[in-house]
Amino acid sequence: MRRHSGKLVSAFLVGLSGYTVYAINEARHPVQQKPMDPSKKNLVILGSGWAATSILKDLDTEHFNVTVISPRNYFLFTPLLPSCTVGTIELRSIMQPMRYITRHKSREVNFVEGDCTDISPDKKVVTVQDNSELVGAVSRQSIPYDYLVVAVGAENATFGIPGVRENACFLKEIWDARKIRTKLMDCLETAAFPGQSKEEIERLLHMVVVGGGPTGVEYAAELRDFLVEDLKDWYPDIAGKIKITLIEALPHVLPMFSKQLIQYTEEHFAENKVDIKNNTKVKEVKPREIVVQNAQNEIESIPYGLIVWATGNTARPVVSDLIKKLPQNIQNQRRGLVVDDYLQVKGADGIYALGDCSATKYPPTAQVASRQGKYLSKRFNEIGTITEEASQIGLANENIAEKLSTLEPFEHESLGMLAYIGSDTAIADFPGSVKIGGALTFYFWRSAYLSNLFSLRNKILVASDWIKKTVFGRDIGRE
Amino acid sequence: MRRHSGKLVSAFLVGLSGYTVYAINEARHPVQQKPMDPSKKNLVILGSGWAATSILKDLDTEHFNVTVISPRNYFLFTPLLPSCTVGTIELRSIMQPMRYITRHKSREVNFVEGDCTDISPDKKVVTVQDNSELVGAVSRQSIPYDYLVVAVGAENATFGIPGVRENACFLKEIWDARKIRTKLMDCLETAAFPGQSKEEIERLLHMVVVGGGPTGVEYAAELRDFLVEDLKDWYPDIAGKIKITLIEALPHVLPMFSKQLIQYTEEHFAENKVDIKNNTKVKEVKPREIVVQNAQNEIESIPYGLIVWATGNTARPVVSDLIKKLPQNIQNQRRGLVVDDYLQVKGADGIYALGDCSATKYPPTAQVASRQGKYLSKRFNEIGTITEEASQIGLANENIAEKLSTLEPFEHESLGMLAYIGSDTAIADFPGSVKIGGALTFYFWRSAYLSNLFSLRNKILVASDWIKKTVFGRDIGRE
Repeated sequence: MRRHSGKLVSAFLVGLSGYTVYAINEARHPVQQKPMDPSKKNLVILGSGWAATSILKDLDTEHFNVTVISPRNYFLFTPLLPSCTVGTIELRSIMQPMRYITRHKSREVNFVEGDCTDISPDKKVVTVQDNSELVGAVSRQSIPYDYLVVAVGAENATFGIPGVRENACFLKEIWDARKIRTKLMDCLETAAFPGQSKEEIERLLHMVVVGGGPTGVEYAAELRDFLVEDLKDWYPDIAGKIKITLIEALPHVLPMFSKQLIQYTEEHFAENKVDIKNNTKVKEVKPREIVVQNAQNEIESIPYGLIVWATGNTARPVVSDLIKKLPQNIQNQRRGLVVDDYLQVKGADGIYALGDCSATKYPPTAQVASRQGKYLSKRFNEIGTITEEASQIGLANENIAEKLSTLEPFEHESLGMLAYIGSDTAIADFPGSVKIGGALTFYFWRSAYLSNLFSLRNKILVASDWIKKTVFGRDIGRE
Repeated sequence: MRRHSGKLVSAFLVGLSGYTVYAINEARHPVQQKPMDPSKKNLVILGSGWAATSILKDLDTEHFNVTVISPRNYFLFTPLLPSCTVGTIELRSIMQPMRYITRHKSREVNFVEGDCTDISPDKKVVTVQDNSELVGAVSRQSIPYDYLVVAVGAENATFGIPGVRENACFLKEIWDARKIRTKLMDCLETAAFPGQSKEEIERLLHMVVVGGGPTGVEYAAELRDFLVEDLKDWYPDIAGKIKITLIEALPHVLPMFSKQLIQYTEEHFAENKVDIKNNTKVKEVKPREIVVQNAQNEIESIPYGLIVWATGNTARPVVSDLIKKLPQNIQNQRRGLVVDDYLQVKGADGIYALGDCSATKYPPTAQVASRQGKYLSKRFNEIGTITEEASQIGLANENIAEKLSTLEPFEHESLGMLAYIGSDTAIADFPGSVKIGGALTFYFWRSAYLSNLFSLRNKILVASDWIKKTVFGRDIGRE
């Protein structure tokens, strides 16, 4: 009996490793794809974030000639970006090149690296511009569409506060995380420069985070971990002088979480000497100090070394421009495109919008964008099938439109929210009454993030980064 | 008997893992160090490369107050830099932060991140300037020395050829490798931009390497591996159009290797479609084309997408300046500081030089720099011991000088040379008659590089990068 179960386990393990090798190898070596078919409709997808990749994943390219346009040729797993700012995870581990996705579709998908600078809803054409450092003889092109999916995300909001763009670091893209990592180490090395005064050392070692949402909170948590777990060993003279301050304009951080978890987080931060300044409004960011109106309504000037700005979103120029081109009585939201229940942009023909560039009742989260993408891929698969069937039996366009309208509208119920708050502690807020926080939640946080990573490759890379960090610590090279 | 040997193996494995855990943990958590001692002499080391770290490794800080000055707060394992340009290895894996070394010395070592901009041999003072993006109130400082070690390395030589600095990428530092990686992917994405002409695609996909030394050869080899092993899968339409050209002014590449290995390499490159242009002199590097005088003495203009310049060294400004301050009849070499057999700079008091910034009969390689560093650390340990003993028994200075002169001069015999030439093939040239090349030599190359890496951490990181690359391939995200 024991021998039998041993054999069974061995057989299972051999099978599992065999499958893993097969899966990785298949992912690495895509097969030849069908060429584009001029008889099919052109579907253009703008973006390479949560929404865009989620559509691509489930879209049946049988029905469309698909073009994807994005200035970044990779998908970025943004929830782990705060971990990259201190080297808990390496940036490459949370990148998934777009061609790893497009090359696995049954029909060729055209990926264009460039910024979509203009959408013409009348001519049904988008303009793409190569804004990278290296450009070729042709760097601007018009691309026609039958269906257009706008999934370009949003920009960092600065609320018109002077000096933010010039002096603060954002935390949205690869280069943001790298800039923070370099600047953070530069603050430490500059503070260690011989002859630096006490006040200047204090200023350089004051790390300020503006915005008490999940990004700001997780960044503050990672920074504090880096300080305790690594910097104390390598900068014994100055690590003790590092101060972390989190500034939030509202009465509490993480306003989307339940009260008890907010309190838990604020207490946890207080214990770990991360100073939370609630009810504090930023008035100006100067090169070496930030001017705020504090909870007592006094104007205060706080010297800082590094400032990370993680407050919220505003529409990208291409989206604002499109909004202006559409009927103003329908498109009346500055934050994004107003869509119907099927994610179709109101007042436009054949344009869909989802994720952070759309204005819906849902919060601008990765979860919502990804769900909307999944919904839209299903919808396009249905549109494709219906149109194809209709053209085979010679159905008129009105009847197609009628058939389409019977499709289900988009509905979303939150799966819950998670946030890492430092020292191997996380909080989780599920719909209903389940609110948990602590060390066990941290392992749940890790496994939830891990299982949501795009590919087996990303999962293994992130897991090995976590092991690496645990064994060797984070590295302190300023590169 | 079988049971016994099984137990022995288990005991050995447990012991080994126990030791590994202990060693890693000890490396991560350095103990408290003795403070600086005003009665000791000040030893200032300029640099953080092969020479500087090699001195630090074996130096007994009992005898000196040591200050290390370098614009980079890490040591870089330069032989693997070509592998980083295409993502075979990640940059962080070959960086060793300087504080990982200095914090493990028995006495505090002062590390200053900054450029040494001036050396005053009369006043025995160096000037350090913080030239990083972020500077504090104090960003310039004078640091006095009793002994000074100049180990600042060299700059890339451009031989006054116009356009090199503006248009070519070097391959010496972290940012060089990153720039090449980004630009390479940008060339591919720009070539894939819709509407690009055939000629422009050809230009963008022409990768030119100038310099047939080990760096240029290894870079060309890595590039070719990347093309065959990865790009063909992800850019099926354009990968076949990528061309690699290696330009060398001399009659052959790798002039320091033996004839048979040069021939082997040139044949291997020809088979793998890397075009070697020997006897070809670069006249100018324009933004999109390189002007050369070819083997037939004709002037030719070659369009290119990316150009990597790996030709040779020239002295850094701080070294040239120091040379000018010393007696011109002794310091008569433009390439570096002339030193005596004990690596002491001729015509200066208490200044030592080694590695690429010194002018010796040895080639400017990592091997020589590292050996010189080891020698100098031994010498300083002796100087320290002798001076200390002398001061205890009240010996006069002349007698100390006399005692010192009996120390052995520096001698070096080459351990051999290695180079990777692509498709899992390497060449090795040992002193005497052992000249080998092929797949087995590749494994020798790997193990030699691995065993020369600074720390257990670096060794494990590089080994895991190699595994990662073998399993998942290199990633193609342009970041």
